[in-house]
Formats: sequence, structure tokens, C-alpha cells
Amino acid sequence: MKPDRPLFVDGLQISNWSRAVFEENLRGGVDAVNATCAVWEGPLETMGIIGRLYELLRVNADVATLALTVDDVTACRRDGRLGVFLGFQNTSPFGDDYTMVEVFHRLGVRVAQLTYNIQNLVGGACYDPVDSGLTRFGRRIVAEMNRVGMVVDLSHVGYRTCRDAVDASAAPVAITHSNPLWFFPSPRNKPDDVMKAVAGRGGVVGCCLYPNIVESFATRDDFCRMVADLADQIGIDHVALGSDSVRGWGDDYLAYLRNGRWQPPDPSAPAPTWPRWPDWYQSPEDFPSLAEGLGRVGLDGDAVAKILGGNWLRLFAEVFSGDKAGTDRS
Amino acid sequence: MKPDRPLFVDGLQISNWSRAVFEENLRGGVDAVNATCAVWEGPLETMGIIGRLYELLRVNADVATLALTVDDVTACRRDGRLGVFLGFQNTSPFGDDYTMVEVFHRLGVRVAQLTYNIQNLVGGACYDPVDSGLTRFGRRIVAEMNRVGMVVDLSHVGYRTCRDAVDASAAPVAITHSNPLWFFPSPRNKPDDVMKAVAGRGGVVGCCLYPNIVESFATRDDFCRMVADLADQIGIDHVALGSDSVRGWGDDYLAYLRNGRWQPPDPSAPAPTWPRWPDWYQSPEDFPSLAEGLGRVGLDGDAVAKILGGNWLRLFAEVFSGDKAGTDRS
Repeated sequence: MKPDRPLFVDGLQISNWSRAVFEENLRGGVDAVNATCAVWEGPLETMGIIGRLYELLRVNADVATLALTVDDVTACRRDGRLGVFLGFQNTSPFGDDYTMVEVFHRLGVRVAQLTYNIQNLVGGACYDPVDSGLTRFGRRIVAEMNRVGMVVDLSHVGYRTCRDAVDASAAPVAITHSNPLWFFPSPRNKPDDVMKAVAGRGGVVGCCLYPNIVESFATRDDFCRMVADLADQIGIDHVALGSDSVRGWGDDYLAYLRNGRWQPPDPSAPAPTWPRWPDWYQSPEDFPSLAEGLGRVGLDGDAVAKILGGNWLRLFAEVFSGDKAGTDRS
Repeated sequence: MKPDRPLFVDGLQISNWSRAVFEENLRGGVDAVNATCAVWEGPLETMGIIGRLYELLRVNADVATLALTVDDVTACRRDGRLGVFLGFQNTSPFGDDYTMVEVFHRLGVRVAQLTYNIQNLVGGACYDPVDSGLTRFGRRIVAEMNRVGMVVDLSHVGYRTCRDAVDASAAPVAITHSNPLWFFPSPRNKPDDVMKAVAGRGGVVGCCLYPNIVESFATRDDFCRMVADLADQIGIDHVALGSDSVRGWGDDYLAYLRNGRWQPPDPSAPAPTWPRWPDWYQSPEDFPSLAEGLGRVGLDGDAVAKILGGNWLRLFAEVFSGDKAGTDRS
């Protein structure tokens, strides 16, 4: 890749992080990633995960580092390291205690999805038949996230809770890893009005490569055209990528993601196995060809730069600054 | 007090923090304090305590703020605010996980006592009849504290574990709140060899006002003479104050400190009540007269400045810088 290629930020990966996975990302030109470090875990388990991740980052400080600010991403590019933003795919690490938002922010967490796949204290999930909308506690959590400077992520969140959260949030919000519903019908993909509401408030949508929410016969060009069409629909400043790459996890982890501790595995069904990723996106090493594909569907260099990283970085800069009013120190 | 009075740091207070307690400290001329936020609590409970303390500090940001560095103390003096260093009187918040040292350091914790009143994973306490010395896990914890820049506190720690910790620590250590054993016989006070070992490695001893470890008929001058004599014994650069002030807690909290969850209250004994503090030190508001007393036993202005804050700040500056070798970011 050219040395002046745009900064590249992956809106979400859920990987079993290791030196090999850091290096794979670097080979794919990734400068920073929102790295999931909680899905079902509560506060204590999440502290342990973060503590071990600090250790992993320290031992591999030549290839990766904790990222806390937008400037850290620029520094990572300069140093040839992967910037790791800590992110949650659930608000479970906050338990029922809103002060945990500031605690985890101080530990480096910069993104939190309001719900994973089931309703929680904060709101409804995309797979719930009934969605409460954002709860009273959910409004408090969103307000705290706005205050400390943490990105509200709506990817797995239910329709009504998404709409409520866009309205409730004083800062723009993200959908880090979902596609438009018109591209592929899945509860994980988002209808037009949610996409437009997110964009209308300055938010960003990360188009997602996870096979189960991409049309299975989609080619690289189909995917890239979807990205371009979404940019036409909601604006080029509001579209990005969130690969949802899963590296280093076996099928056991998929079963954990599906069932958490809220239901037993279905004894009548075969154990779940990870879906097959498209030939044109097997791992973060395939990002350069994806970037090339974006150019081939007619997006110019500026547009591609926004999609690859510029839009995430603009959103992060705005959200991370938090609400200084009423804050003592960040 | 004169505007050019020396910076004053209290080596330890264990208070039920509130606006009133912050203001009382300010009236007493305190610029910063090592504020105990864990005694028996594990990782999760401690997170909750810290989260609520962040909230309290934010709401009272005009009178107090989280202190993380020595520069923060200077800023607090300038702004007329109390700097609150978070401290532990136990390593219980680390559980059995050494990575929790970095987690809590990132949350702002700057001091941790290795044991409270009973043996733990790290070593023996001052009340234990047999002291294992610093354990293998204890050596790991001390090394992590050295690395991230957290002060090792030996106040309630057992004799052998104290000696081991001084030797094991790459950074100077503290006894934040104990007196010389020659002043008053208590397992909480320290024999000459421990005092000298701490001082010999550049550490600091905070002379303590807690009634149970001060001769009960001691006058203010007796206490101040003890401070001066200790300075003669181990060097003026190694003596400071750690009041152990207890503000805002009722007798229930004393019972909790005594029994934790490791033993039931003694049914044959009356419920414990807080000891009576000396007339000459009832609260942090009495610090100015204590400072005056230090002058009256013959300590000059430079010596008093070291005892009131200079020695703590020198130790903090040295320890907080951590061991940059092998660290990615502090």
C-alpha cells in the first residue's frame, strides 16, 4: 500500500487477541480497531479480561498498543503499531451501577453497545420480540457515556431502543457493525429510518462483513456497491466499515456468544459452527483488496478515505471529548 | 496560615468522605491526602467504592479533586482544593490476579498496603502470630506495583513481610501511618530495624495520631518530640505524617474494620467504640497547631516542610514514575 494511504479504522472485531492477530491486522493495513472485550460478562469478569489485555499489549508493545484518543491512531500509523480501542458489545459490565461507566472509561473503554442479543437493564435487543425502548436506567447510562466520552453503539440493539437512544444521546451515536436491511434481511441489519436517524445526528454506520448478515452470494463488488449506495442514501460522512472479524476463536466461543448463560444449548440442534467467510474477505489481511473494491464501484479517493477511517475518527474525536460541563477531569 | 506555608500531605485518612470532610481538611490546611478506599473489599466492591467516589468528587469539584500526580498537589494548593489520592489498606482488591494492579492504577489508585490485619495472599499482618514473609504472589504484586508506579505501604504489615518487602521492592516504600515501637508498644508500631530499613532505601514513615498507637497521656509536645527524635534516628528526609483520621464513620464501621468478614463479633465483649482522640488532635482542623508544635520542639522551617509534605511528595514523585522499562504506557 502507498505510504500516504488513508488511516484505516475497523469499527469492530471480536477476536481472541494475540500477537498473530495483531500482526495480521497490520499486514491488512489496519491502524486501529474497536476490540470487543465484553459480550456477556459482568463488571468483575470484564476487569479480568481488561487486565489480561493490558498484559498482552505490554508484551507485544512493538506491534500493538492501547488506543485512547484519535491522536493515538496517528501515532500508531507512524509507529507501525495496531491501536486497540477497548469496546463492549453489551452494557453488562456496568451491572446496575451507572458509576461503572466512568470506571470503565478510565480503564480505556471507548465504545459500548447498549445490548447484546437479549434485553437487559438498558433496553431491548434486535432479537427480542418486544422492545421496551431505552429504559430509565438506559437513559442514565447514555447520559453518563455522553459525559465521559464513550461511543454509544446500536449494532445489536432493538429497533425502538435504537430510535430512543439516537434521540436521548447528546452526542452522535454509532452502529459499528450492521448493514442496511435492504441489503440483506436480518434482525441485525437496520431499516432506513434508523440509518437516517443515526446519520441525521452526525453518527456513523460500519458496514459489516459477518457472513450471516451479508447476502451469501454477494461478491466483493456487491458489498462495495452496498457501501456506496448507503453513502448515497445517508451521506458519505456517515458510512464506514466494521468487519466483525472473528480471529482465533473456536466453535465453543460461538456457542458462548449464542447462549451466554441465559439459555442452555439446544440439545436437538447440532452444535453451532462459525459461518464460512466470503472468498474475498477471509481475514483483515484482505482489507487492501476491499479498499480497492470501493474504488472500483466509483467512490473517489476522498470518499474511500472517509469510509476506511476518516468517519470513525471524526466521530471518535467528537464523542471522546465528552461533555466538559459538570466534569471535573476526564 | 501564611500563604507561603509548605505543601501539606496527610499520609493516610480513612474517612466517610463528604463535602464536610473535604472542607474540614481544607480548613486544616491539607493540600492532599491518601484516602483509603478499600480495607477488606474485593475487586468488585472496590470498583463500586471508586465509582461512587468519582461521583462525589465531581459533585464537589470546587473543593476536592482526584489527585494522580505530584503536580496535582501543587495545582490543588493553587486552586484551594483538596487532592484525593486513592489508596488501599489491603491488597484484597487485587484478588488473586496480578493484572488488577495495573487496572486499579489506571483507576487512580496510587498507594496499597500489602495486608490489613490478617494474613492474605501477599504476606503476613502485624497481628499474625506467624508471619510467612512476602509470598511468591506477594513478590509479583510488589513488582507490578513498582512497574506501574504504586506506593507499597507497610503500616499494618507483619515484621518479616515488612523486611522482605523493603528488600523486594525496586522502589522506596512507605509506612504511611505507624509510630516507632519505642514510642508506644503496639503490633502496629515498628521496631528500629524496620524503620531504618525503610529509610535506608529512601522510604518515608508517616507518624500516626490514631489514639491506640499513641501513648494515652502523650501531649502534643510529646508527639512532636517523637517525630523529631525519629528524624534524628532515621533522617529528616524519611519522616512525615499519616494522621489515620477517621471522619464521618460510626461505631459500626469500627466493628467492620475489626472483624471484616473473617470472624463474627465477640458476643462476650461490648461492641467496639472509636477511641477518644487527644485534645490536641480532634480532626484535620488541628493540623496547624500540630505544625506549630513541630517548630516548638526545635525543628526548623525546612525540617517542618519536609515532615508536612515534602517527604511524601519526593517519595510519590519517585515511585509514581514507575519502571518505564518494559512498560508500554503508564
